[in-house]
Amino acid sequence: VRISELAHRSKVPLPTVKYYLREGLLAPGTTTRPNQADYGDEHVRRLRLIRVLREIGRLDVGRIREIVNAIDDGRLSRHALFGTAARALASERGPADFAPEMERAREDVDQLIGELGWNVRGDAVGRRQLAESLAALRRLGRDVGPEVFRRYAAAADEMAGWELASIDPELPRAAAIERMVVGTVVFEAVFNALRRLAHEHRSAGSG
Amino acid sequence: VRISELAHRSKVPLPTVKYYLREGLLAPGTTTRPNQADYGDEHVRRLRLIRVLREIGRLDVGRIREIVNAIDDGRLSRHALFGTAARALASERGPADFAPEMERAREDVDQLIGELGWNVRGDAVGRRQLAESLAALRRLGRDVGPEVFRRYAAAADEMAGWELASIDPELPRAAAIERMVVGTVVFEAVFNALRRLAHEHRSAGSG
Repeated sequence: VRISELAHRSKVPLPTVKYYLREGLLAPGTTTRPNQADYGDEHVRRLRLIRVLREIGRLDVGRIREIVNAIDDGRLSRHALFGTAARALASERGPADFAPEMERAREDVDQLIGELGWNVRGDAVGRRQLAESLAALRRLGRDVGPEVFRRYAAAADEMAGWELASIDPELPRAAAIERMVVGTVVFEAVFNALRRLAHEHRSAGSG
Repeated sequence: VRISELAHRSKVPLPTVKYYLREGLLAPGTTTRPNQADYGDEHVRRLRLIRVLREIGRLDVGRIREIVNAIDDGRLSRHALFGTAARALASERGPADFAPEMERAREDVDQLIGELGWNVRGDAVGRRQLAESLAALRRLGRDVGPEVFRRYAAAADEMAGWELASIDPELPRAAAIERMVVGTVVFEAVFNALRRLAHEHRSAGSG
């Protein structure tokens, strides 16, 4: 279809579609005539994905580009892709600054992950985020060790288990990866919203 | 103590301390002489709290003000406070736009929350966030109902259960509320980081 029809079908404004083409978030169409290109279903799908990453994941264009490039890179394993997605999804602001507590917190977190037997890269962004949280708790005067994360780790591992099991192994690689990315972004928002609602519910009437 | 000592103890730069005073995030000290005020432990504690909300929660000054005002407002129940915290913690950007799917999604989410028996306000921000997520999944062509949220709701409710139980009921009200706010912000970051690490771990070797 032509670009105007692509914009219509994907419910994305035409200037935005053109912007994504310029920024490399969307692959060029097949040139049919000078100044005219043809777009297919995969373009519609990609535009919908971009929209969800933008509106639910709140990602900027640079982060979305990292993710779509990773999806399109046939050499990346699913494992590598999760690392890429986690980096892209990590907060756009720089790391928090909780020195001098950070060094010990990093060691504590690395030890916990070792004890859990989790196979994650040494530079995984999640390690830094956990260490920042631990350092923040200590800064607030709470004398806690990484064992405060164990229950959360068990819950997260269980959730990751259902989530990966829910991806049909027969899906083609690109579709499976898209599903993983969407699931990561959308269900993170879902879980965070539900946890806060559950807090509100459980504290009702407690004064 | 004097303001310079306050900055030193709380590890917050002096100009930032002055900025928080001007912005009303920090209560004025007790005036001891013209141009000199005395600050106490509660000021140190408040500065540490602000730092965690800023660095882990990534909240801007306006949102932090809403939260500290709520903590200081002795009339608010814990239930009301959770609502305030959830609103303040909700994304700074406006709502996502997934019309026309939103209307049905809102009804579906309200029905789910009714079935769960959760006592949360009709205008709780979490309802909108869940509806946005549901609308986004449908926009991506997934024909799903709010029952996809049930497992997440059960996990969130269980987590909220331990979290509220871990707050010592003997704590004074202000300290208990501070703990709730910190727990909401810090352990949300912790859980999200752990979930992504668990994805990376569980997809290792799956190709």
